[in-house]
Amino acid sequence: MQFSKLDDIGALCRELPKGDSRAAEAAAARQQVLTKPPGSLGRLEQLAIWLARWQGRDRPRLDRVAINVFAGNHGIAARGVSAYPAEVTVQMVANFSAGGAAINQLAKLTGAKLAVEAIELSRPTRDFTTAVAMDEDDFLRAFNLGFRSVPEGCDLVAVGEMGIANTTVAAALCTALLGGGAARWAGRGTGVDDGGLARKCAVIEEAVAFHRGILADPLRVAAAMGGRELAAIAGCVLAARIRGVPVLLDGFVTTSAVLPLARLADDTLDHCRAGHVSAEAGHRALLAALKLDPLLDLGMRLGEASGAATAILLLQAALACHNGMASFAEAGVSNRE
Amino acid sequence: MQFSKLDDIGALCRELPKGDSRAAEAAAARQQVLTKPPGSLGRLEQLAIWLARWQGRDRPRLDRVAINVFAGNHGIAARGVSAYPAEVTVQMVANFSAGGAAINQLAKLTGAKLAVEAIELSRPTRDFTTAVAMDEDDFLRAFNLGFRSVPEGCDLVAVGEMGIANTTVAAALCTALLGGGAARWAGRGTGVDDGGLARKCAVIEEAVAFHRGILADPLRVAAAMGGRELAAIAGCVLAARIRGVPVLLDGFVTTSAVLPLARLADDTLDHCRAGHVSAEAGHRALLAALKLDPLLDLGMRLGEASGAATAILLLQAALACHNGMASFAEAGVSNRE
Repeated sequence: MQFSKLDDIGALCRELPKGDSRAAEAAAARQQVLTKPPGSLGRLEQLAIWLARWQGRDRPRLDRVAINVFAGNHGIAARGVSAYPAEVTVQMVANFSAGGAAINQLAKLTGAKLAVEAIELSRPTRDFTTAVAMDEDDFLRAFNLGFRSVPEGCDLVAVGEMGIANTTVAAALCTALLGGGAARWAGRGTGVDDGGLARKCAVIEEAVAFHRGILADPLRVAAAMGGRELAAIAGCVLAARIRGVPVLLDGFVTTSAVLPLARLADDTLDHCRAGHVSAEAGHRALLAALKLDPLLDLGMRLGEASGAATAILLLQAALACHNGMASFAEAGVSNRE
Repeated sequence: MQFSKLDDIGALCRELPKGDSRAAEAAAARQQVLTKPPGSLGRLEQLAIWLARWQGRDRPRLDRVAINVFAGNHGIAARGVSAYPAEVTVQMVANFSAGGAAINQLAKLTGAKLAVEAIELSRPTRDFTTAVAMDEDDFLRAFNLGFRSVPEGCDLVAVGEMGIANTTVAAALCTALLGGGAARWAGRGTGVDDGGLARKCAVIEEAVAFHRGILADPLRVAAAMGGRELAAIAGCVLAARIRGVPVLLDGFVTTSAVLPLARLADDTLDHCRAGHVSAEAGHRALLAALKLDPLLDLGMRLGEASGAATAILLLQAALACHNGMASFAEAGVSNRE
């Protein structure tokens, strides 16, 4: 599948597969007979049932887990909105290749396969305060790249990003699509000072004013005010849905990347869970707007899928219990009186 | 070491080792130069530094992790305070031996060594509404058993329990030592109905009234209103401190078991972290009283160290990053401008 216009994405979002209710019900029934009070594993039970629904298996598996990280560069970085210089994007991609970043360690720990896609880093998007960040073709190229990135036979995909200045992009998307003003969504990202934060808010307000004519169209907003790595994340998440692959979302930028999809239909993100809530200012409010309840709340704010990768461990715990525990009958344990 | 009177425990709690500040500082310094914005791994950074302090190693390790589960039976179970019959304690211990319980799966997943100590299950403690649950010797025997349970050369111990009716015991300890009335601390445990919950509150109020003369003495309260598995947990946690072994606490019952230690001196639990906050009603308030900020909040309420074991995964993630990441200098990544 290849998208050649924005409307095709919107049309697909309105007729997505709903998951396998039979597998979910069988998994829920199994949870009732395992040797524990019903419900006592809390979200670990719900996660097993959720994996069952989207994998279409009452005994889900996590043998092949993909961590897909997309990297992009941003014209807006030239406006002094980040604590780090723009060249760090390409340097961190090299660090990913060399195995030195946090996500490399977490991929190794979880047994997941890490894939990093650096998308045209030498050609930053345009400064979105005075132009569209990407024209439609540019956006679709990145979206299609993400759409093709879900490996065949994959059991789960954790998605994340790298891109200096992209928390400004994320906050701009939230301001454009959810309202409330830039100050509600802009945070300190990698650690800007008060001046940097003020500049972030200012460029976001400029951008929303400049693009005011398209704010009702989520995909045009994603192209005009987004970034290539965000477009690729959206493509990846949509492909996972079609292919029966559950998704763990990373932090603020990743969640903002799928916000346009969520504005196209109510159930677009039902196959996704938020791996964590980031310390980045706007993430908690964004998750609440999307009705996503994060699995972890550890004050992480690194991106590069680090929060989603950490949450893979919780899914492994959920399935270890779901698939490995004995039933009351098997163990000869008395059930409730 | 062997305790032959309660006062010896109190004396030890007032002169505990403080951890290795040099190792903690070296670990904190390392976190500053790894390829990420400082602080961006949030609690994963703090956990690595905490492990460094209590292991006395700037590069901590989790090669040998112990999960110690203690089981006990309770006279108070005869008062209709649990949804399950008392024989489930011994049946679940058999399930642990056979490998069918949740904790077996989590131990396998984390690579930890599970040890289950069933403490005199055929001899329940006394009904604490009309007598002391344990006399001093009985309490010390269980405490000493726990004290001996930390394996030589162990890098971390996760502690938990099994014992039908022991959320009533836990709530009684909290009511006795923290006040606020039984209704503040009693919850539904494995799932009692409204009548069972009312009975729990009633027996706790009876017990606190019966033992009103000793409420200022935390260890006498632990003997009079506690349980053998709780005494063993307290012994295990204290031994870990002496041996330089950090501890992950499980849920409400486990935390209530170390509450008496925390009442003896301010820093007794500094080598402990709360693996999770349980769905059991009183746990969140108990953690707040102990200034313990839980690592996970997943609505779990199973006990048997399941929450602590799940949190081991987060410590593994913390150390994977701490020990495996490249520094800015090693990776050739530009630091902040």
